Amino acid sequence: MVTDDDMTLVDPGSDDAYDLDRKRVAQILAAVDSGRQDLLTELMEPLHAADIADLLEQISSADRAQLIQLYGREFDGEILSELDEAIREDVIALLNPQVLAEAVRDLESDDVVDLLEDLEEPQQAAILETLEDADRVAVEQSLSYPESSAGRLMQREVVMAPEHWTVGQAIDFMRESDSLPDQFYHVVLVDPRLHPIGNVTLGRIMGAKRHVPLAEIVEDTFQIIPVEQDEEDVAYAFNQYHLISAPVVDDEGRLVGVITIDDAMTVLDEEHEEDILRLAGVSDGSLADRVWTTTKQRFPWLAVNLATAVLASLVIAQFEATIAQFVALAVLMPIVASMGGNAGTQTLTVAVRALATRDLTGSNVWRVIRREVLVGLLNGLAFAVIMGIVGVMWFGSPMLGVVIAVAMVINLVVAGLAGTAVPIILEKTGVDPALASGAFVTTVTDIVGFFAFLGLAGAVLL
Amino acid sequence: MVTDDDMTLVDPGSDDAYDLDRKRVAQILAAVDSGRQDLLTELMEPLHAADIADLLEQISSADRAQLIQLYGREFDGEILSELDEAIREDVIALLNPQVLAEAVRDLESDDVVDLLEDLEEPQQAAILETLEDADRVAVEQSLSYPESSAGRLMQREVVMAPEHWTVGQAIDFMRESDSLPDQFYHVVLVDPRLHPIGNVTLGRIMGAKRHVPLAEIVEDTFQIIPVEQDEEDVAYAFNQYHLISAPVVDDEGRLVGVITIDDAMTVLDEEHEEDILRLAGVSDGSLADRVWTTTKQRFPWLAVNLATAVLASLVIAQFEATIAQFVALAVLMPIVASMGGNAGTQTLTVAVRALATRDLTGSNVWRVIRREVLVGLLNGLAFAVIMGIVGVMWFGSPMLGVVIAVAMVINLVVAGLAGTAVPIILEKTGVDPALASGAFVTTVTDIVGFFAFLGLAGAVLL
Repeated sequence: MVTDDDMTLVDPGSDDAYDLDRKRVAQILAAVDSGRQDLLTELMEPLHAADIADLLEQISSADRAQLIQLYGREFDGEILSELDEAIREDVIALLNPQVLAEAVRDLESDDVVDLLEDLEEPQQAAILETLEDADRVAVEQSLSYPESSAGRLMQREVVMAPEHWTVGQAIDFMRESDSLPDQFYHVVLVDPRLHPIGNVTLGRIMGAKRHVPLAEIVEDTFQIIPVEQDEEDVAYAFNQYHLISAPVVDDEGRLVGVITIDDAMTVLDEEHEEDILRLAGVSDGSLADRVWTTTKQRFPWLAVNLATAVLASLVIAQFEATIAQFVALAVLMPIVASMGGNAGTQTLTVAVRALATRDLTGSNVWRVIRREVLVGLLNGLAFAVIMGIVGVMWFGSPMLGVVIAVAMVINLVVAGLAGTAVPIILEKTGVDPALASGAFVTTVTDIVGFFAFLGLAGAVLL
Repeated sequence: MVTDDDMTLVDPGSDDAYDLDRKRVAQILAAVDSGRQDLLTELMEPLHAADIADLLEQISSADRAQLIQLYGREFDGEILSELDEAIREDVIALLNPQVLAEAVRDLESDDVVDLLEDLEEPQQAAILETLEDADRVAVEQSLSYPESSAGRLMQREVVMAPEHWTVGQAIDFMRESDSLPDQFYHVVLVDPRLHPIGNVTLGRIMGAKRHVPLAEIVEDTFQIIPVEQDEEDVAYAFNQYHLISAPVVDDEGRLVGVITIDDAMTVLDEEHEEDILRLAGVSDGSLADRVWTTTKQRFPWLAVNLATAVLASLVIAQFEATIAQFVALAVLMPIVASMGGNAGTQTLTVAVRALATRDLTGSNVWRVIRREVLVGLLNGLAFAVIMGIVGVMWFGSPMLGVVIAVAMVINLVVAGLAGTAVPIILEKTGVDPALASGAFVTTVTDIVGFFAFLGLAGAVLL
């Protein structure tokens, strides 16, 4: 229930709605510093588990250790679920075994799975031991499905009904059951072989007469998720078809679980995060990682970039003699490369997104490529005129103006072409286009930019 | 209900689950070409409205016009809801007024609002006219809330109950009501002044005895959304607190509507899309836009980039004399700038995301900046060693190796600093950091990179 305290946490009118209240964080840290357990508990009480997790991520590791020790047995299992992987292991190691056992026992089985899959073997085993037998079996079974599959995402508690039941029968059944899941939105209709054949929302059951057959009030949109399906595809289906929950089936089409929209939303959020970071050459990691971890994570992409930059420099080196004669070329050449790199990044980002949202498919691939090349040509012409004029005015050489103008058009057309073709080819070959497109495309635009500009200059000006 | 045809649309085992089936698209276009209305209707029948919308986006505008004419009165309102803004107006213009009126009348009021808010005045008026009076008033009222606010997002149909009711009373009430919303998941408890005080899920109502007071089975997590709140904050709250639906209140705290998770998921998806595109300098637009529209959309960012590239060139121009003596500098200088640009982009992307997810706040801002600078220093040292060796081996000059090494360290430290400080400062001043950080940070790393490398070279080598 909402309390007055809850209200003070957020100021909905401000830009910072749902920001952790900085004053409260300071108060909490002060309570930890002075070792006042009662005050700490009181300050933490109104916070949602997700906010406590954020708090733990944002404070220093020394403060975190102190806080957890003082907070002790109040520590809720949900906080663990919400914690960033980067510090989850540290926090688990800080909890005393009894508190940990109690925290985990309160969680739903799909949350335990989510918690366990990122942990090292010994911590996994320690937590599994604390579970009751039935729960442990369920969790182990979920862990037997491939990582990032629907099987890991689903909850095993399903409310189902035979296809011939009426509304009244379903209501009586639910009434008498004492193991209804905490959250459920549909009754899944199944045939005698347990194949799901339709979803009936609780809302419609509430609104219908008792004698109405459930089969008559099933939802129009109904998607069945295979248990091995990738969670990214699951999230796409929920988003595309506005699903609230969907039945999950095994190889033989038998109902084995249900995925609900909140889990799909989490996956969608994670996939987006991954795409954004990958496009920027950050494949993993969070602010809560250690400096050394982050340094190692960023290194490979920078190394790739170094290799491609050296490649581009080798192109420049071919024209050393030309540059020695016209130093103006050294001044202007980064402009051509930079414009190509930017135009290429614009195009590839649109292409990567369109591939992820299935908006770029076999049906329109050629139209899209043609379109991006045309956009590159038009913007290339515009900037050719601008840069041509700048070149002439700056260095007083009409030929230099023409050279930079022509190089600009060439590079922006190439940027349009590479920006679409590279992600499409990567996707075809099974490489995540978000991860690798940037390096390829900017290499192309750097090399083409330098080569076109310096090569033309060499031919025309010498 | 699912039909056999539905099954052929997706091949869940493949990488391309939920891709539009290319063969079916070809069949549909063939049916359109040969003017076979019956075949077209049969082929379209099993497709979900969202898939039909995707189809319309992916085919050429000529095919689209023909298809819509032939498909005619089968055209469903939901297709319009799902369509990309870029072609929605075109499609509406193609529909005959009667079909349009019928299509819109089937939609829920929040979908009509979503449809209308992106349309031009005359089309808006035309559609409003086709609505029944009560619906029109509801839609006009929703449109009176600010764009992108909770008021635009909510549905007005709410199932509520007085706080003192029991489970039995709630069930009887819902039974007898014949205007239950299509989709609802909670009964909202309200006090006599219509202030929402708790949510009860339908699942718990189903599972509880009739005499149990609703107030005893309210959900733990309960968030109230102010009607003026930005939809981005609404999406954040749903994602952070795993909400399924949340009551929306007016200035006086009175219940005026409900937002459900599927709407929040759509917003989350749009916000992410916007962030990804903005980070790449594409502020708007989709693949369905015309070439000319896209060219104009991409131009401003490229113009900003040109200005910053010219700025960097002005720095290079200061060192023309140095470059004229050592052309090797012209060959190597783009490497230093490029490495700084990449490291800066990595850092700024992490910072922009952390700001969006409220993981970077006043509580940890200094720790994060220090951390990123340290990461820059460590990677700077690593690449300084590598590039120093490359410099010596390539050009046989130890001093050149030292110069590029030192410039590399300086630029990667600056990248770490600028990559965090710039987004934070932009956020503070109310500018979307996703939109502008890239231009600022790469300008800094370009200028510092060229200046450090060429300046050091001038001092040491001359």
